[in-house]
Amino acid sequence: MDALKVVVLAGGNSTRFAPLGDKNLFKFLGKSLVEQQLSQLKQHGFANITVIANPNSYKDIEAEARLVDETIRVIAQDGEGQAGAVQTALFGSPSIGDLLVINMNDIFTPELINNFTAKLPGLRESGRNLLTGYKVTSYFPGGYLVRNSQGFITSVMEKPGAGNEPSDYVRLVWDYFHDVNQLKSAMAEAGSQKDDVYEVALTNMMTRGQEFVMLEYTSSWHTLKYPWHVLSTMEYFLSSIPEPKIDPSAEIAESAVIKGNVIIEAGVRVFEHATIKGPAYIGKNSIIANNALVRASIIGEGCVIGFASEVARSYLRNKIWLHMNYVGDSIVDNNVSFGSTALTANLRLDEGTVAVNIKAEKIDSNLAKLGAIIGADVRIGVGVKLMPGVKIGRNSALKSGLLINIDIPDNTYADTLQTLELKPNRINIAEKSREHSAIK
Amino acid sequence: MDALKVVVLAGGNSTRFAPLGDKNLFKFLGKSLVEQQLSQLKQHGFANITVIANPNSYKDIEAEARLVDETIRVIAQDGEGQAGAVQTALFGSPSIGDLLVINMNDIFTPELINNFTAKLPGLRESGRNLLTGYKVTSYFPGGYLVRNSQGFITSVMEKPGAGNEPSDYVRLVWDYFHDVNQLKSAMAEAGSQKDDVYEVALTNMMTRGQEFVMLEYTSSWHTLKYPWHVLSTMEYFLSSIPEPKIDPSAEIAESAVIKGNVIIEAGVRVFEHATIKGPAYIGKNSIIANNALVRASIIGEGCVIGFASEVARSYLRNKIWLHMNYVGDSIVDNNVSFGSTALTANLRLDEGTVAVNIKAEKIDSNLAKLGAIIGADVRIGVGVKLMPGVKIGRNSALKSGLLINIDIPDNTYADTLQTLELKPNRINIAEKSREHSAIK
Amino acid sequence: MDALKVVVLAGGNSTRFAPLGDKNLFKFLGKSLVEQQLSQLKQHGFANITVIANPNSYKDIEAEARLVDETIRVIAQDGEGQAGAVQTALFGSPSIGDLLVINMNDIFTPELINNFTAKLPGLRESGRNLLTGYKVTSYFPGGYLVRNSQGFITSVMEKPGAGNEPSDYVRLVWDYFHDVNQLKSAMAEAGSQKDDVYEVALTNMMTRGQEFVMLEYTSSWHTLKYPWHVLSTMEYFLSSIPEPKIDPSAEIAESAVIKGNVIIEAGVRVFEHATIKGPAYIGKNSIIANNALVRASIIGEGCVIGFASEVARSYLRNKIWLHMNYVGDSIVDNNVSFGSTALTANLRLDEGTVAVNIKAEKIDSNLAKLGAIIGADVRIGVGVKLMPGVKIGRNSALKSGLLINIDIPDNTYADTLQTLELKPNRINIAEKSREHSAIK
Repeated sequence: MDALKVVVLAGGNSTRFAPLGDKNLFKFLGKSLVEQQLSQLKQHGFANITVIANPNSYKDIEAEARLVDETIRVIAQDGEGQAGAVQTALFGSPSIGDLLVINMNDIFTPELINNFTAKLPGLRESGRNLLTGYKVTSYFPGGYLVRNSQGFITSVMEKPGAGNEPSDYVRLVWDYFHDVNQLKSAMAEAGSQKDDVYEVALTNMMTRGQEFVMLEYTSSWHTLKYPWHVLSTMEYFLSSIPEPKIDPSAEIAESAVIKGNVIIEAGVRVFEHATIKGPAYIGKNSIIANNALVRASIIGEGCVIGFASEVARSYLRNKIWLHMNYVGDSIVDNNVSFGSTALTANLRLDEGTVAVNIKAEKIDSNLAKLGAIIGADVRIGVGVKLMPGVKIGRNSALKSGLLINIDIPDNTYADTLQTLELKPNRINIAEKSREHSAIK
Repeated sequence: MDALKVVVLAGGNSTRFAPLGDKNLFKFLGKSLVEQQLSQLKQHGFANITVIANPNSYKDIEAEARLVDETIRVIAQDGEGQAGAVQTALFGSPSIGDLLVINMNDIFTPELINNFTAKLPGLRESGRNLLTGYKVTSYFPGGYLVRNSQGFITSVMEKPGAGNEPSDYVRLVWDYFHDVNQLKSAMAEAGSQKDDVYEVALTNMMTRGQEFVMLEYTSSWHTLKYPWHVLSTMEYFLSSIPEPKIDPSAEIAESAVIKGNVIIEAGVRVFEHATIKGPAYIGKNSIIANNALVRASIIGEGCVIGFASEVARSYLRNKIWLHMNYVGDSIVDNNVSFGSTALTANLRLDEGTVAVNIKAEKIDSNLAKLGAIIGADVRIGVGVKLMPGVKIGRNSALKSGLLINIDIPDNTYADTLQTLELKPNRINIAEKSREHSAIK
Repeated sequence: MDALKVVVLAGGNSTRFAPLGDKNLFKFLGKSLVEQQLSQLKQHGFANITVIANPNSYKDIEAEARLVDETIRVIAQDGEGQAGAVQTALFGSPSIGDLLVINMNDIFTPELINNFTAKLPGLRESGRNLLTGYKVTSYFPGGYLVRNSQGFITSVMEKPGAGNEPSDYVRLVWDYFHDVNQLKSAMAEAGSQKDDVYEVALTNMMTRGQEFVMLEYTSSWHTLKYPWHVLSTMEYFLSSIPEPKIDPSAEIAESAVIKGNVIIEAGVRVFEHATIKGPAYIGKNSIIANNALVRASIIGEGCVIGFASEVARSYLRNKIWLHMNYVGDSIVDNNVSFGSTALTANLRLDEGTVAVNIKAEKIDSNLAKLGAIIGADVRIGVGVKLMPGVKIGRNSALKSGLLINIDIPDNTYADTLQTLELKPNRINIAEKSREHSAIK
């Protein structure tokens, strides 16, 4: 397998992921997606790996890759979209041998890599290419694989609409090309068409009679297209915790309760009458303070889950400060503080699913419970109420007491007008108090 | 005692009880008033019982009666008020023998029924009727019994006003008639007068010289005229719990504390660091979640008293969802959810007693502490503040963050206008944070 | 030392301390400043003590002095400021012997009194006077002591401005006069000048060649000029608690946790799952209720720190009622109640230091964390949010839900307008609920 070149795409702009930071740097169980994915590839013997990174987070992604292997190449993407990424990969390297193109933020079980590895010798021998089909049971707005009677893929039909599906298989990006030069020339031929050069190149190859077999994948698939996908991905990782693990340096108060599969990292402190219900992950040096409750959540490093706060089914990155808050079904990027009793509402009063504004569109998350999506470096005043599915831009501050039911852009101070009316107090409170018994 | 016919009045419209449902179906310690009262009658040997039910809850009342005895007749009331109820009973049955008329929602200690049972043989022998007098020590706005020198009741004086009381005895509805035909003809004579036909009939009988003796009652009396009476009635039932009783199927976390006379039904779960202080009743399959506190309250079935919530001196019917709430001195009908930090204020700032709007009137509850009165199927947004004594109509929803200081009708969505003002945030929060030490 | 007359100044108007009451009556660890200071003087053998009290709190101060010694004279101040106080003392007593003038609300370690006592015989012998210099390392807006080459103080330079300090010593009021008559005549000479008669008299004495030596003081100094000084003074006293001390009559629930140096007085009750983290002081008959947290704070007598409340680094005087509140870095005078979820914000969103309005000026407290300053007899509605550094006047009431970001005068009712908009609820909640599973 020495020659197989693996290109891992991690160069997207992630505009649909805003206001959250680069998705590939999000950590699950203490390791970034970059580290997780590259480790897995390395463990399976892939030795020639190139990561195409977003120029803005190139350095951070490279640092993560270094944690896995010194030989992994990290290249800043030049050009837009998936096509740009692939082109960056192709034109930045010698065009020989075979090629595997995968997405950094598509998370599969080991089943996929194992099945692919088993098929690889045959593919190399037969000179065939491979695309991966994910078996679906209901309509999914992706590209459907169309196969001929011999089982070869003849085309990819994009979003055919429910009822018009040509097969049960949606294409996942785990693409094997027997000869990188074939892809290269097909892409060159596809030319300057914008977004879908890569897809057009695939079609061109099929049209030319280059054979594509399908790798069937039926296990779980998680991706990070929209911000709320952090939550399902988190759930996947949390459910993979095999057993409780508490670092010996962690300090757990005697009256605190830790149940189920909980990972507690070094330097964590859990105070009196706090509860952590697994599955959950508590990052280094974080504090779970008195009477707090954390369940089914990831808490990053250096966080303070303050007195009487609850975090449920939420992803909190690093340096998050809570105090008497409820954070449910929410995603919070680095360095965010919540004033006392500020909270995320996670359920609509009409109990409908929660929609989120993505670019100019309102996208239904299909989630009955979804809280807030909060960018990095945000300050939330006391008593602020974040309505289901709102997004708070980076470096923004929300004045105390506000009800936030619209998205807040980056670098914004959200305020409202309240006119206090001061009148004479017609009650003598001290006197009233004397009338009452000491214990009301 | 075989022939005594007992008519239990349960047909009222309960408009003064709105937005709460039929008062006779309210459960105390797991049994509806219907079941409690009819069981007691049956235990004392009363075998010929007819319940006059409100047509709207006829089926539910019948179902409750069936739990006690198959022979109990339940009739939907035809006509208005107490008179309508009695007439329904009288004209729907053969007119022979004696008759006892009582109210389903008047709750007495067994003293009353025992004393009556002791007197019954004498009444039958002497051919006398009986009314019941409740000894009062201060003015009560009811009907006062006036007796002659021989001790026979000669009239009932309605609301004489403080200082003008003709006796110390207020009439309770526990009326015995030696001959049902006498009542029947007296009511026919009273004719079409609206509300008080029954009272007029009583007066007519006295005028005719039909003898009424008085049964004196001095023990506790609870009734359900106004919504807040649920609380005093609850207190009565809670104080009757003889000892703690926890169903073996209940799951109680080791760190949870249960003190005093608490009944915990099947399937209940009590989570870590929760406290239940008796007297209290927790209905089937309810959850008392982490760090919650329940005291001096009744919690119905299928409720979730969520994280860090307190329920104090309140009656919660079935399927109530709390989460970080305070519910104090409040009555909540079925299927109501509270968003996080929504709460009931139960004390006026001026510490005066709380008045409640009943029909067009403001009635002083004479309670220094009274929270909210909430109808069935209500959704309360996060951070909503319910002022003392407000009533929330059925099937209504309250937008997050509102201060509710007026009654909300049925089927209403309560909203308010808040205009957010978005300005540039002139602080670089990330930079500021770097200036500060990690632990603020 | 029999003849030394000690005058303790406690007569100030404390307008900069408003809305808090007389600072000298504030208790720390269960004893008022008056009792603490006079006890210390008595323990060191000072037998001739006169306290100059504010006429408004004369009786209370006298009562406190009586706790220490029957012979201590308490005089109501006649005239304004420090000069008025000293004049009251001087002209109300025979003018013989020597005199020590000190402030009731300047708190020193025993070092000062010990050093002074050691020097006293020499002063008496040499006929010299003494002022006290506090060594500072950065600019302090006070009076700087200027000394000549022999070490005698030649003048006091008021607020020279940073960079212009004539020495490292700021004058503290611990002034010794060898002959009271010298001061008396110097003050008479200073005449009718208003505020600074006493300072002018000192200068006059120096000019005449009456010798003043300096007592150097280098240990901690706390004073109560501004309201927030209560917090630093509290910290000083709390840090002096040598070991935990729980009165045997206190009732502590088994699941409650008490850590560190905590003093718990008689009749205190600590309920289930509460935590007290030392250093802390809990006054007589106070309740720390379920799931509450108190840390680094003083709680006075008869307080109720209700369910799920946190008090952090705060001074609560007597009869304070909390319930689900956060009180942080705040000072609360007697008889104040907080409605549920009302809270003090203690950190600005921009993380700047908190300024407070003192008379017509905005004074920077130089504190990054400062909550509210609340006068006596205040009622705070549910959900009220007090912004950092606001002052709430005495006998005022704040309507539920308000955001208080301005100071509230005494005797005020703070209100705001919220117009509820009632619309039809277009959802059938009961039906919706049936669609959902029992456990959402």
